[in-house]
Amino acid sequence: MSPEIIFDPYTKLYSEASTLIRSSEIRDLLSVAGRSDIISFGGGLPYIGGLPPEEFSRVLNDVVSEGFTQAFQYGETEGLETLRSRLVEVMSEEGLSAEPEHILVTTGSQQALDLIGRIFIDPGDVIVMEGPTYVGALSAFRPEGPRIVTIPLDDMGMRVDLLEEELKRGDAPAPKFVYVVPNFQNPAGVTMHKSRRDRLMELADEHDLLIIEDNPYGLLRFEGKPEETLASRGPHRVVYLGTLSKIVSPGIRVGWVMAPAPLVEKLATLKQSADLCSSNLNQMFAEAYLGQDIWKKNLESQKSIYRSRRDTMLKSLGKYFPKEARWTHPQGGLFIWATLPEYFDTAKMLPLAIEQKVAYVPGTAFYPDYTGANHMRLNFSFPPEEQVIQGIKRLGKVIRKEMELYHSLGLDHS
Amino acid sequence: MSPEIIFDPYTKLYSEASTLIRSSEIRDLLSVAGRSDIISFGGGLPYIGGLPPEEFSRVLNDVVSEGFTQAFQYGETEGLETLRSRLVEVMSEEGLSAEPEHILVTTGSQQALDLIGRIFIDPGDVIVMEGPTYVGALSAFRPEGPRIVTIPLDDMGMRVDLLEEELKRGDAPAPKFVYVVPNFQNPAGVTMHKSRRDRLMELADEHDLLIIEDNPYGLLRFEGKPEETLASRGPHRVVYLGTLSKIVSPGIRVGWVMAPAPLVEKLATLKQSADLCSSNLNQMFAEAYLGQDIWKKNLESQKSIYRSRRDTMLKSLGKYFPKEARWTHPQGGLFIWATLPEYFDTAKMLPLAIEQKVAYVPGTAFYPDYTGANHMRLNFSFPPEEQVIQGIKRLGKVIRKEMELYHSLGLDHS
Repeated sequence: MSPEIIFDPYTKLYSEASTLIRSSEIRDLLSVAGRSDIISFGGGLPYIGGLPPEEFSRVLNDVVSEGFTQAFQYGETEGLETLRSRLVEVMSEEGLSAEPEHILVTTGSQQALDLIGRIFIDPGDVIVMEGPTYVGALSAFRPEGPRIVTIPLDDMGMRVDLLEEELKRGDAPAPKFVYVVPNFQNPAGVTMHKSRRDRLMELADEHDLLIIEDNPYGLLRFEGKPEETLASRGPHRVVYLGTLSKIVSPGIRVGWVMAPAPLVEKLATLKQSADLCSSNLNQMFAEAYLGQDIWKKNLESQKSIYRSRRDTMLKSLGKYFPKEARWTHPQGGLFIWATLPEYFDTAKMLPLAIEQKVAYVPGTAFYPDYTGANHMRLNFSFPPEEQVIQGIKRLGKVIRKEMELYHSLGLDHS
Repeated sequence: MSPEIIFDPYTKLYSEASTLIRSSEIRDLLSVAGRSDIISFGGGLPYIGGLPPEEFSRVLNDVVSEGFTQAFQYGETEGLETLRSRLVEVMSEEGLSAEPEHILVTTGSQQALDLIGRIFIDPGDVIVMEGPTYVGALSAFRPEGPRIVTIPLDDMGMRVDLLEEELKRGDAPAPKFVYVVPNFQNPAGVTMHKSRRDRLMELADEHDLLIIEDNPYGLLRFEGKPEETLASRGPHRVVYLGTLSKIVSPGIRVGWVMAPAPLVEKLATLKQSADLCSSNLNQMFAEAYLGQDIWKKNLESQKSIYRSRRDTMLKSLGKYFPKEARWTHPQGGLFIWATLPEYFDTAKMLPLAIEQKVAYVPGTAFYPDYTGANHMRLNFSFPPEEQVIQGIKRLGKVIRKEMELYHSLGLDHS
């Protein structure tokens, strides 16, 4: 960096909203994860190394040879009609029925979160999120200045009973929306139980709630029976977010929103001012790839890699983490959520872990008020199994050492 | 569209900002332009048909075979280091010197406009724009609720003397920034004269102004001597926006901002919440393409096509438009700006033109207060020459008919 980084000439010009923007811990960690000597459980990366380059190359070649002038041109803001029809097919894999005209293609589902935040949130508005929740949703909503109400999770997903309590408090203003990641939640790895889904949709009817259902991992189920989506249960209550980042590739930045037509129109108008349109080249690649059987075959192969890495991580946690620790047992997705005794501060412990060449995301990143310090998010999709074993072993050692220190100082009474 | 479009279930939930979002006329016209029987001067599309598919295909193949796991993975929010170094080389073609760490890669330069609007503008803040100005900048800034001061253009670009008057008015609050498109302006096609650039930078020093220099067309000069960029003249006063949309392809959505490091950091943090990162596949394609001599050869060939189409349009305007009309003579870029007698309303005339199978963008789209009704923007880069001739002939006929009507009603006293 050059010397002028010291002086910011524009400080006095910045907007109020810009003061609400914070660099996320995930971001800072992704740069750490890039260092090859560190075993990182910190990212949320799919394992691209498990995919066949020649198949991707062939699909790209077909796109360019058959649709060159379209692929390299501007596209319509709503996204390619052909791709939206394919996305309808993808959603039908989870039992969700949809129409292409209810879909807006976005530049990753992160853009959908950003557009939704801007369309719905005024400063001071209440929104409801899970605790812990997806850090990218936090960073998308935060600049709009909402008051965030956090509803805790357990192994069955959001504690909908606590949401009900919150909604029934006489003085509570009605929330603009309730944001949930029902399948293999990021960061907690838990899946919302059928009974919770039922009750959430009942509450939505009773209290006229809008639900934002973010479902990036639904098709990454390793075992067990899929739960019906919230959008299937109450299409007029739910804005549904999907993405190809975890089931095809994040490098093409293709996500989508499914919503009633008037909201799609509103989101599209805002998307137009946000980036005009998503890449036609990437959309046409996605469309062509999803039009061939290889996508399901490759997804199965990815899932079997992830399942195996999850198993290895669970086994290693049992072996190397102290008995005081607990962790979730995800049936799919990318993440395990580990909980240490309450006196732990995983944010403070992170530099010690990095010193021992292992990284994770501290729990504080996933709460709007930076609580959750005794938790950590562990990603199992990216590191190979020998690294999973080695990394959890290193991390277990760091944790045990911290426990000893706390114990010797008499600070372990939580 | 399904029946539920009639009913918007979320009306009561929308944010204040969302009420400031309006669908642009360009957008509505792009859908008209898609109808094959209409000759459209309405878009702003580069002519991809003039580029060699096999060269693009070869570069893409190289990217996938050499960098598969990176191309299809998430990337860093700031953009690929290798691409940022190439963009430094692209900027040096216009005499601009830069460092990669002062560059943030964006998803098209439209995203840069969006991020800048959000970082700088609070509701009620004054910003200065040219009149007419780029419609995408208007739509990016408008949701933030600024008060937009418009400074007229003439054939030498922004009337900097009028900006000076505005700045010297005792009661005027200091603007957050001054947004300009100095080269082959969209929509007017005019280029800011050296003397105006000099004076603008003096004013920036005198009044401590931040200049947003948007330069998508600088390298599309057909003739004449390039003017030094504003960023070269006063790097600490200028945030510079570039894009590959017009010199490589808009289908890859690669733009960039050059700014002091602290602002790059702030914009990157906001970009992270907007779309996490731009497509690695597209960035790697851009990097590889710009690393080969073909990019300059292809750019020369594009320029010669555009120059020829511009010449044909200028000639056709002279032949088919009434003597009361005037138009600009751009030395590059994509657009000619035509001015009809003051009593004309080109927005009202548009349906008549479309009936005659020709389209343009009415001048009102390019002013924040929807004035400028007697102007129209004409794109010459996309339609082939025989269409340019035919389309201008049709448009001339529509205009003459309107003039006759106004004359017969005695309404042509402007």
